[in-house]
Amino acid sequence: MKTYLECIPCFVRHCLDVGKITGADEKLQEQLLREVLLSLSKIDMSKPPPYTAKHIHSLIRKITNNPDPYKEIKIRHNKLAIKIYPKLKSMVKGSPDPINTAMRLAMAGNIIDLGVKNNITEQEVEKSIANGLSQPLIGDFQLFKKEIKNSKNILYLADNAGEIVFDKIFIEEIGPEKITLAVRGGPIINDATIYDAKFCNLDKIVNVIDNGSDAPGTILEDCKEEFLNKFWNSDLVIAKGQGNFESLSNVEHNIFFLFKAKCNVIANHANVQVGSCVLTRPIKEDKGN
Amino acid sequence: MKTYLECIPCFVRHCLDVGKITGADEKLQEQLLREVLLSLSKIDMSKPPPYTAKHIHSLIRKITNNPDPYKEIKIRHNKLAIKIYPKLKSMVKGSPDPINTAMRLAMAGNIIDLGVKNNITEQEVEKSIANGLSQPLIGDFQLFKKEIKNSKNILYLADNAGEIVFDKIFIEEIGPEKITLAVRGGPIINDATIYDAKFCNLDKIVNVIDNGSDAPGTILEDCKEEFLNKFWNSDLVIAKGQGNFESLSNVEHNIFFLFKAKCNVIANHANVQVGSCVLTRPIKEDKGN
Repeated sequence: MKTYLECIPCFVRHCLDVGKITGADEKLQEQLLREVLLSLSKIDMSKPPPYTAKHIHSLIRKITNNPDPYKEIKIRHNKLAIKIYPKLKSMVKGSPDPINTAMRLAMAGNIIDLGVKNNITEQEVEKSIANGLSQPLIGDFQLFKKEIKNSKNILYLADNAGEIVFDKIFIEEIGPEKITLAVRGGPIINDATIYDAKFCNLDKIVNVIDNGSDAPGTILEDCKEEFLNKFWNSDLVIAKGQGNFESLSNVEHNIFFLFKAKCNVIANHANVQVGSCVLTRPIKEDKGN
Repeated sequence: MKTYLECIPCFVRHCLDVGKITGADEKLQEQLLREVLLSLSKIDMSKPPPYTAKHIHSLIRKITNNPDPYKEIKIRHNKLAIKIYPKLKSMVKGSPDPINTAMRLAMAGNIIDLGVKNNITEQEVEKSIANGLSQPLIGDFQLFKKEIKNSKNILYLADNAGEIVFDKIFIEEIGPEKITLAVRGGPIINDATIYDAKFCNLDKIVNVIDNGSDAPGTILEDCKEEFLNKFWNSDLVIAKGQGNFESLSNVEHNIFFLFKAKCNVIANHANVQVGSCVLTRPIKEDKGN
């Protein structure tokens, strides 16, 4: 999808938030904000938002001299998710439809924002998961289940650190032997990288690759050849999170997107209400946007 | 007060909103947004937010070729407020402390955002007023009442169209003969101008002047001499709304600011919780900011 005018205030707000996370002083935060504003005044609106986010974050890294502002946050999220993993597993085992429950947990991992509170407790996370599981899912789960069953080579595009532990549960139910898990090629926001996949022992159960790109999504022209080969040779791609939807929503391939529509722009693009949990396919009529 | 980093995303969001209000097509809205982003990348952060807003709105007017984007909205708000004026008057007359009730109504006029809904009903406005009246007021009303009584020349700085009908009630209780009402010198957002003051018959009861400036606040160096003479020769200045507080909070004069702190930046600057109804004085220790 293209970048909408409504995305621009979010980029500016995000830049301010990251400036604070890096611990930069006010002077440096101001310099960062000015450079991002100047940069945003010239962006290519025909590109998806992760394309611009990649550029903004390269500015942030350069100006704050911080190669990975979300490093500690990602480790904290990974640890928290690993801690509740056994409970998540038992939820799946005790379920009448394990693959559905596992998918719902993968969705819940996208819904709960582990980063909102610094000292979020295990109980609070569990409450968020229960809420997430009870939300209706917009999409054709039976078709998805059938595609999963019929596919021999599945590419699973991860989204965030912490969330990948929830993905692990789903991957274990699908059958890790036919899955390749792809993470980002470098640190970007709180998105999962090879470091996080190893931290959460995903590499012990599934083939893990990185896509060679540090965009917070999957911008194919920015990805490395090994990834692109995997992408196009997969029978099925499971793409988690908004960033992957934003960057792949117009790509003609057997993709299922699994995400919560957290903002109006995405909700409109996916033709759902904001806040919806969505299982959807590429949007053919929107090709070129 | 200075412009804070947190003000910048709001400016960007505001620019988008106004672009839509002008009815500009998407292409023109994009051009407007790009020019505002470029302009914001170079602003003087030591100036108050209304200084930047004035500049942004001159860009908006130029690019959209629309001299007054909020014209219809202002007329609608004036009409709605005029319609409920008799009920407001009877509330004051039936009150055990008419001047307090009148001041609370002037505050309610600042609280209720008539612009949120296009078809807001009289009943909904009345409900908003009742809510506004029941909110606690942070400030020394007794001192304010004493200053009003002791002052012979009061300058009343208006804020928005519609809201000035609520101000009219307060002015009538204070005694219009000792008051000069000042409005903005040109159209800016939904701020009241001479047109609105006349539309609401304020000119029939009180001396009305404009400040010569089209900033959404009172930036003294931008105001005309006639206004400045009135300002400095007044015993008391009553300044309505955030914009007047933002631009005059560090001016040493006998000013009472009356406003709802609608955002975090203003709330922090006024040392209150966001959402508070505030009656406050200039902030001496913050001089120079």
